[in-house]
Amino acid sequence: MSHSGSFASDNTAGAHPDVLAAMARVNTGHAPAYGYDEHTERTRLLLRRALGESAQPFFVFGGTGANVTALDAVLLPQDCIITAATAHIQVDECGAPERHIGCKLLPVETPDGKLTPALVGPHIKGVGFEHHAQPRVISISQSTEYGTVYTPEEVEALSEFAHSRRLLLHVDGARIANAAASLNVPLKAITSDAGIDLLSLGITKNGAVGAEAVVFFREEPAKRFKYVRKQGMQLPSKMRFVAAQFEALFTDDLWRRNAAHANAMARRLAEGVRGAPGVTITQQVEANAVFATLPKNRIAPLQEKFFFYVWDEATSEVRWMTSWDTSPEEVDAFVAEVGSGKWGGGGGGGGN
Amino acid sequence: MSHSGSFASDNTAGAHPDVLAAMARVNTGHAPAYGYDEHTERTRLLLRRALGESAQPFFVFGGTGANVTALDAVLLPQDCIITAATAHIQVDECGAPERHIGCKLLPVETPDGKLTPALVGPHIKGVGFEHHAQPRVISISQSTEYGTVYTPEEVEALSEFAHSRRLLLHVDGARIANAAASLNVPLKAITSDAGIDLLSLGITKNGAVGAEAVVFFREEPAKRFKYVRKQGMQLPSKMRFVAAQFEALFTDDLWRRNAAHANAMARRLAEGVRGAPGVTITQQVEANAVFATLPKNRIAPLQEKFFFYVWDEATSEVRWMTSWDTSPEEVDAFVAEVGSGKWGGGGGGGGN
Amino acid sequence: MSHSGSFASDNTAGAHPDVLAAMARVNTGHAPAYGYDEHTERTRLLLRRALGESAQPFFVFGGTGANVTALDAVLLPQDCIITAATAHIQVDECGAPERHIGCKLLPVETPDGKLTPALVGPHIKGVGFEHHAQPRVISISQSTEYGTVYTPEEVEALSEFAHSRRLLLHVDGARIANAAASLNVPLKAITSDAGIDLLSLGITKNGAVGAEAVVFFREEPAKRFKYVRKQGMQLPSKMRFVAAQFEALFTDDLWRRNAAHANAMARRLAEGVRGAPGVTITQQVEANAVFATLPKNRIAPLQEKFFFYVWDEATSEVRWMTSWDTSPEEVDAFVAEVGSGKWGGGGGGGGN
Amino acid sequence: MSHSGSFASDNTAGAHPDVLAAMARVNTGHAPAYGYDEHTERTRLLLRRALGESAQPFFVFGGTGANVTALDAVLLPQDCIITAATAHIQVDECGAPERHIGCKLLPVETPDGKLTPALVGPHIKGVGFEHHAQPRVISISQSTEYGTVYTPEEVEALSEFAHSRRLLLHVDGARIANAAASLNVPLKAITSDAGIDLLSLGITKNGAVGAEAVVFFREEPAKRFKYVRKQGMQLPSKMRFVAAQFEALFTDDLWRRNAAHANAMARRLAEGVRGAPGVTITQQVEANAVFATLPKNRIAPLQEKFFFYVWDEATSEVRWMTSWDTSPEEVDAFVAEVGSGKWGGGGGGGGN
Repeated sequence: MSHSGSFASDNTAGAHPDVLAAMARVNTGHAPAYGYDEHTERTRLLLRRALGESAQPFFVFGGTGANVTALDAVLLPQDCIITAATAHIQVDECGAPERHIGCKLLPVETPDGKLTPALVGPHIKGVGFEHHAQPRVISISQSTEYGTVYTPEEVEALSEFAHSRRLLLHVDGARIANAAASLNVPLKAITSDAGIDLLSLGITKNGAVGAEAVVFFREEPAKRFKYVRKQGMQLPSKMRFVAAQFEALFTDDLWRRNAAHANAMARRLAEGVRGAPGVTITQQVEANAVFATLPKNRIAPLQEKFFFYVWDEATSEVRWMTSWDTSPEEVDAFVAEVGSGKWGGGGGGGGN
Repeated sequence: MSHSGSFASDNTAGAHPDVLAAMARVNTGHAPAYGYDEHTERTRLLLRRALGESAQPFFVFGGTGANVTALDAVLLPQDCIITAATAHIQVDECGAPERHIGCKLLPVETPDGKLTPALVGPHIKGVGFEHHAQPRVISISQSTEYGTVYTPEEVEALSEFAHSRRLLLHVDGARIANAAASLNVPLKAITSDAGIDLLSLGITKNGAVGAEAVVFFREEPAKRFKYVRKQGMQLPSKMRFVAAQFEALFTDDLWRRNAAHANAMARRLAEGVRGAPGVTITQQVEANAVFATLPKNRIAPLQEKFFFYVWDEATSEVRWMTSWDTSPEEVDAFVAEVGSGKWGGGGGGGGN
Repeated sequence: MSHSGSFASDNTAGAHPDVLAAMARVNTGHAPAYGYDEHTERTRLLLRRALGESAQPFFVFGGTGANVTALDAVLLPQDCIITAATAHIQVDECGAPERHIGCKLLPVETPDGKLTPALVGPHIKGVGFEHHAQPRVISISQSTEYGTVYTPEEVEALSEFAHSRRLLLHVDGARIANAAASLNVPLKAITSDAGIDLLSLGITKNGAVGAEAVVFFREEPAKRFKYVRKQGMQLPSKMRFVAAQFEALFTDDLWRRNAAHANAMARRLAEGVRGAPGVTITQQVEANAVFATLPKNRIAPLQEKFFFYVWDEATSEVRWMTSWDTSPEEVDAFVAEVGSGKWGGGGGGGGN
Repeated sequence: MSHSGSFASDNTAGAHPDVLAAMARVNTGHAPAYGYDEHTERTRLLLRRALGESAQPFFVFGGTGANVTALDAVLLPQDCIITAATAHIQVDECGAPERHIGCKLLPVETPDGKLTPALVGPHIKGVGFEHHAQPRVISISQSTEYGTVYTPEEVEALSEFAHSRRLLLHVDGARIANAAASLNVPLKAITSDAGIDLLSLGITKNGAVGAEAVVFFREEPAKRFKYVRKQGMQLPSKMRFVAAQFEALFTDDLWRRNAAHANAMARRLAEGVRGAPGVTITQQVEANAVFATLPKNRIAPLQEKFFFYVWDEATSEVRWMTSWDTSPEEVDAFVAEVGSGKWGGGGGGGGN
């Protein structure tokens, strides 16, 4: 890329060197395929230590696959999933949940990407009425697509609410490392201890090559999952190379160091641009994303130097993501560019 | 593993060192995600050179995903796929094609895993009749699950037959490298030049970490495929690491060298055990698999030393697979064990 | 039923005598099954006269089946449907569209159950972006689930808008007869002349025993539909008995007389209760439904005498439906009950 | 039709007058929709008396819908159904089971359309192995598509076999009346008493207008079925008219009289043509179908006078179906035509 830097997404970053090293380390001789090898078993134990004894992790290829197969294991086709209108499963998976599971998604509008019992409540209706899809899972993203974070108490409030209505709580944890680092709590505190039922645990965005896990905190779906994963096209044959990536990131809490760095870079960026003419930070910067509005005519020139996405054309809201390898220098260069007067004359103003 | 060697499957092997090296090489800085990076583009051109100018390759995670999304791109739900009763899509994908695409599979009995126009013909019926699923694709495995190989002429006969009946020809090429090496022809000769329409191109079994491609030789499905791949949960975000694996194997024909070696090891194994008491080779050994029957009471003792699968309990037929890293010594040790008198006394005999 | 009358739904009504008579009339000897009979052919022509020469009608069993198969014929699984949050396909079909088609539905909040280009516009996004489901169909209900009606101009505005964005316009016409009667226009005026692309044409709620049609105004989906209908479990074998019901209702415009009567009864009901203490009509009464809020404590007592549904528990909004056979006496008895002081003392008040 | 008679299918016949009369009888005033009416409840009890106290019947629209929703209620998507290669669900439903349920069908070759434990056994494999679809249901047709009939003992042997392997037994009873009449046993004898788990109970082919039932003999699927039926687009709104058809046929065993008549006509036809030059009856005539081969050049001339289907072009095998309203005169006219020398000269001979 000819850009000075990329704030497009945490998946434009490469892999942490430890991850590639771990993959090379397991590359010795033959090993049983499909996860029946010792590397996989060892890594599953590593994850159980991090997530709690009830955790049953299964490795899969990708994030969409993790979400879809996790949900598939607990849903009947007539069930529906209540989720934020901004959730990855609703907005960014090309309808994969509906296609593969056959279920309905009920999107809920939120100010900050976060569900609450109060927001979810009105969508739990038609229970027992055969004309309605049956609410069965509440799915939240941790951290959210807006870079906000659920506290352990907020997760627990949702899991208690879910269970009181006979629903399950799913966490899309593509960026759960960023949440745990932001909260400075162990992963357990926002998963098993907070009563969640199932988790998509991502590491791809946090320094892996490509590896995700589905984690169940209940027995039944874990029993079925081997079929669900295979049928969901998410069963890696040479599983040791997926496990190795988790091993690297769960050794000496590399996952936390990577995530904490990304979070720090986002805070640095946010602090840097705050007050720049025409720039308004629109969401709490709690993880590794910064959302801001800026004058429409300044977006394209800025994108010529730094790659990032426009989140909402209508409001000129943009998203700036940092990652495990974002350098302070890149952030500072970006901040300087945003703060410079170079965007040219009129129009821009304070405005939006 | 404590086994002396594994003849279980070519996916119990590890990755070729060049593959890991290529992955490390692309791990520099940020790159656009989802395949919009230069590494991916470069590798797609490399594949087009190997497969013909009409080839449109797309990288995906796994073999089942490659088959399902390739077929999904050309089928309507009411269509059906005619395939060998032994085909991976019929037997080894846990019903993923039916689940995800919604289509019907029509299994055809074959002596050797290979379809012919004569075998397929009677299954093309009910065309235009709304009560029947509509035949739309013939799917063959190259090499087959029995380790047999279609010649270029045989592929061409099938593609001509398919087109004459308004069907398409799909090749499950999880082991197409072994076929091309066995035939000593370029990949083109058994793909574009032979008139096939779509291909699942696997390299995982041939020395990669985990990487497959869907290749279209027609425009329409290629246009749609970006949605099909995403919805099919087969879109790697850090695509460059998948592309790099292809790059390694398509540089200096590493794919062919790996496959030729595996094939040679299978022939060595077959030659070695031919004539051993009670052992009958049941299929032509044309790629990297040896199928044989042997006395039932000899299977378990042999499996204690070498890992392999029983293919058919009823007939005591077993499958021995070789791979890119199988050593002549392993083969010879195995052959010695099979040929030894250690299996004990009675019963066995020549028999089956 | 022991109730004095039912305002629950237009499908609690029975069948018009002409419908049963027509069914008896076609019950003579053998006829080809699955719609290849002369009764079916004759009735299809009758519908074309009513709906316009481009109309291609196909008979199916039920309303959900009509909607799902109609949409299935024009959608790819990665497509999505934009519809009102109150639409039958969104709320009352137990997720059948998602299950059977695999597509996504995007619900749009509306004040009155009616979509407009301005409401739909912001939901058409991510076009060409593989992470998003692709907007392909706008689906409206005519008359709406709120008993409101789209004028021909409003339908045309939506179809022009849809086509300008390369989308199609689907009309769920379970109650299209009520709309046409309300507008006093021919069916053509709100279908083919208004540029719609596909229609679910219902007669069950308007005096039939059970019969619906899918009508295409374009060639391509009509060609595929025979497979879609069969696979969608909507192909009646003794089709003549379904066709006969349409024949009865499309002879001498019985459909319009039935619908006009139902509409008149709804207006009579609305006029009657308007001004009753605590009763507020919440939607325009344009077809055969009356929506109103009334004091919460008055709902149950009223339901003991007359059967009807609570639409929204939170706001005490109820729905009163009239049908082709609702008598003025029933309406008047109901109005008298609503207007009576019998609901008991306090609380009620004007208020809600 | 201008034909002298139709032996095409039992669904080219019309409805028995009692059926239309029963539909008219329930057409009085309003009744709750969707099966919550007294007519439906009364008829469900009637069916329980016929099928056994464990029977839980649910009415649906059509035969394909009955099969698909019945199976959907007991299957997970990774499950598979073992059925005869000639079964309606395999051959005549346009892939609806795969499409809607997502499951795999395993077709078993049979000589006479009948499964046995011995035929099924080899197809129960890969149990517990995640690469294979999991065998879960054995589905038989009673009477079969070849007009053959399972005895109570044969059904019981299959249900015991199924249960011993943790499978369920489904009966596609589109023509179960013909089987019971042929065997001269109560319906119980070949359903609940024979240990079957789920039944598609058809009456459309036996004198109804259009009505089928799904019957469960276990609790769990019955509990879920209300959602499955709605989502499967098989929930009639004015259910009383479907129930009435069952009521007519289950009053004074009209179903048995209709079926016995159809069976008798088939026997009359078979006896009549047996020995005609070139005609060979190919299956036991146990229900209301006659299968025969006859000289190829005689088929078209015969079809000009009587409508029937060619079953297998390759072998010149045809199917002649009789129905509840087939008259002895029609049969005799047909027999006379078959036996006449009019088919012209050479070739025909005894032959095939």
